[in-house]
Amino acid sequence: MKENILGNSNLEVPPAGRSRTGLKVRNSPATLDRRKFLFAGLGLAVAPLLNPAGAAVPGAETSEPVGTKPISVRAYGTTGADRPLAAMEIQRRALGPNDVLIDVLYCGICHSDIHQARNEWSTDVPTSFPCVPGHEVVGRVQAVGSAVTKFKVGDLGGVGCMVDSCRTCENCQADREQNCLKGATFTYNSPDPILGGHTFGGYSDKMVVPEHFVIRIPPGVDLAATAPLLCAGITTFSPMQHWKLELGQRVGVIGLGGLGHMAVKLAVARKAEVTVFTTSPGKVADAKRLGARDAVLWSDKEGMKRLGNYFDLMISTVPHTYPMQQFVDLLKLDSTLVNVGAVEPLAAAGLNGMAMAFGRKSLAGSVIGGIAETQEVIDYCAARKIKADIELIRPDQINQAFERVVKKDIRYRFVIDFASSKAA
Amino acid sequence: MKENILGNSNLEVPPAGRSRTGLKVRNSPATLDRRKFLFAGLGLAVAPLLNPAGAAVPGAETSEPVGTKPISVRAYGTTGADRPLAAMEIQRRALGPNDVLIDVLYCGICHSDIHQARNEWSTDVPTSFPCVPGHEVVGRVQAVGSAVTKFKVGDLGGVGCMVDSCRTCENCQADREQNCLKGATFTYNSPDPILGGHTFGGYSDKMVVPEHFVIRIPPGVDLAATAPLLCAGITTFSPMQHWKLELGQRVGVIGLGGLGHMAVKLAVARKAEVTVFTTSPGKVADAKRLGARDAVLWSDKEGMKRLGNYFDLMISTVPHTYPMQQFVDLLKLDSTLVNVGAVEPLAAAGLNGMAMAFGRKSLAGSVIGGIAETQEVIDYCAARKIKADIELIRPDQINQAFERVVKKDIRYRFVIDFASSKAA
Repeated sequence: MKENILGNSNLEVPPAGRSRTGLKVRNSPATLDRRKFLFAGLGLAVAPLLNPAGAAVPGAETSEPVGTKPISVRAYGTTGADRPLAAMEIQRRALGPNDVLIDVLYCGICHSDIHQARNEWSTDVPTSFPCVPGHEVVGRVQAVGSAVTKFKVGDLGGVGCMVDSCRTCENCQADREQNCLKGATFTYNSPDPILGGHTFGGYSDKMVVPEHFVIRIPPGVDLAATAPLLCAGITTFSPMQHWKLELGQRVGVIGLGGLGHMAVKLAVARKAEVTVFTTSPGKVADAKRLGARDAVLWSDKEGMKRLGNYFDLMISTVPHTYPMQQFVDLLKLDSTLVNVGAVEPLAAAGLNGMAMAFGRKSLAGSVIGGIAETQEVIDYCAARKIKADIELIRPDQINQAFERVVKKDIRYRFVIDFASSKAA
Repeated sequence: MKENILGNSNLEVPPAGRSRTGLKVRNSPATLDRRKFLFAGLGLAVAPLLNPAGAAVPGAETSEPVGTKPISVRAYGTTGADRPLAAMEIQRRALGPNDVLIDVLYCGICHSDIHQARNEWSTDVPTSFPCVPGHEVVGRVQAVGSAVTKFKVGDLGGVGCMVDSCRTCENCQADREQNCLKGATFTYNSPDPILGGHTFGGYSDKMVVPEHFVIRIPPGVDLAATAPLLCAGITTFSPMQHWKLELGQRVGVIGLGGLGHMAVKLAVARKAEVTVFTTSPGKVADAKRLGARDAVLWSDKEGMKRLGNYFDLMISTVPHTYPMQQFVDLLKLDSTLVNVGAVEPLAAAGLNGMAMAFGRKSLAGSVIGGIAETQEVIDYCAARKIKADIELIRPDQINQAFERVVKKDIRYRFVIDFASSKAA
């Protein structure tokens, strides 16, 4: 067992012993003829952790290191909107020079996964089947392409909602890859510009992702409870950054689910005064445990009324449309309700032109964050020991988990444990 | 004929010859027993301009100066949503110490006047009848209350959409009287906190307004064409200020009517690049004449599509709900469409959560501006010779004007001429 990083003669090989990112590497004279990548074959130093004896790993039988060719990996997906998820085989491409092969350890279950698997966004984003969801991935780097500098084999890496973008347009250059003018490639259900077809997400054994779109996971964090930061964390962190939520300001968090509970934790970390608006009486105490000053039931009209013109910022994490004007009414002058949950037409939001005009209030949308900002939230949370409240499940429990998410019976994120089955 | 400003013994009377605002005043030993105001009686130095011989002015027959008692004035209003406007008598209160009596010279016709007179906002702001509209008023100060310092008799004064507010709440203190936490008193159809009943607007011979809510009109401006700045001007100026429209930025103006044409003029004055979106082919050339770089018909789907992600700011001046997402799509990243026209429920706006989230776009509302900002737009326009394009009408032509506004057959503001009938 040895670290086995091979270089192609066309590579810019960093000085032996230290890569340009400062990682220790060992240069081997061996080369691969056709492809320009560095990679680590199976059976490497880190492999025992990731690939237990007996685990069927495609490519393991060949003499070529993994990543040289496309590989077939086990995934959990669905072949139709009304069908349960089941194990299936999907293809991952051979590593390109900038690609990283991630051995998936944990993947959170986002409500978006359910919407997509069930084709509930059909008007806006029809689902291509088979659909393999998952965009809250933490894994171990198993191989790296020849030009990769950000990761070495054995590093921890995270994958969020995007796996590619043009990286040259104005928005990409501004670290807003999610707004790539040519269209970002999302982690699942996006056209796959390399393999054709569409992308498959993190409910899978392995992923191949350009290093730019892989987030460094600091050592020492709780890997499973960090996975949800890749979507729920960045989605709620980004508006707090953009709308400059500051110490002592008042923020309303609408909905206390996967995103909502992260919003509370992240706002509390900023020492903002947090009020949660929930439809679940059982979550009131929980909101306070998470650090909210108060929690108000939507049905408590008096409680809502008392908070009129009160908030500097509201973040709506509810994953569908609902009457929003009732919360716009709670905003202070010039303030904004940021919708990060509902992605369909907002006709039911009941917005009122006059009520918005008086108070110069705004409804804004926000979606995840760029790669740099995603790295920022991961580092921010690692430094503050902020993580999601999770319930670990086995891959064969995904369908039950979906049902429980829909019934709001989860506090607050399911995370699929792929690691246990891989541990020796 | 002489200037005849009377002081009450309880007044803080400025040193003779110069008031605290620097206006020349002459203190008279005469006092009024009950009321604490300075006022100018009828038949003063400025009166010939305002009150032609033979004009029936209530109170003129008495020995008491105008303003001492409530007065009955001629107005143009309607007694029901489906009835035409007609001449009627309304009451104006006796001057309070801080009040100014305005002899109305010109009043613009805002589309809001029509909505209100016809009770078209019934859900949000039901109309109290009789309804006397008008909130774009320029007139001459005919009398001032005892504590008034901002105006002297003969000055020009403007009245916009508000005539009172609490002036003590956080918002009032922040020069945002329109957002008074206790509710501003709007120029018409607001509960009248002094007389009871509801307020009557500027389609009337005279108005009594606290000096704070009267805007100074610089000498030398075109009075009739300045009147529309009190609503159409401030309404479009304020969002340009708040959202910081700057030189070279791209602004889209949706709708080219009274508000829209002011938006174009005001944006051009900032050297912004202006694109007008109109439904009227006949207005395309006009938009360019007003200084727009381009004008695009809503029906020109290709032209619209070419402008995707183009604008730093969009200002929607259309006075009703329409599909707005088509314009949100034209915003750049992080930009805002400000609705200053549609004040009803926005269900028909077709907003899409996903489309807004991608691009972190906002829909905001804005309504007029505070008194300080209203003064600012008046001064700004006076300095730059910016005025509305108007068509003067007689009071007996209001109903025809309403019809033509609805048919978009006005370029761009009707202004009712009360001055001609008052000129000697």
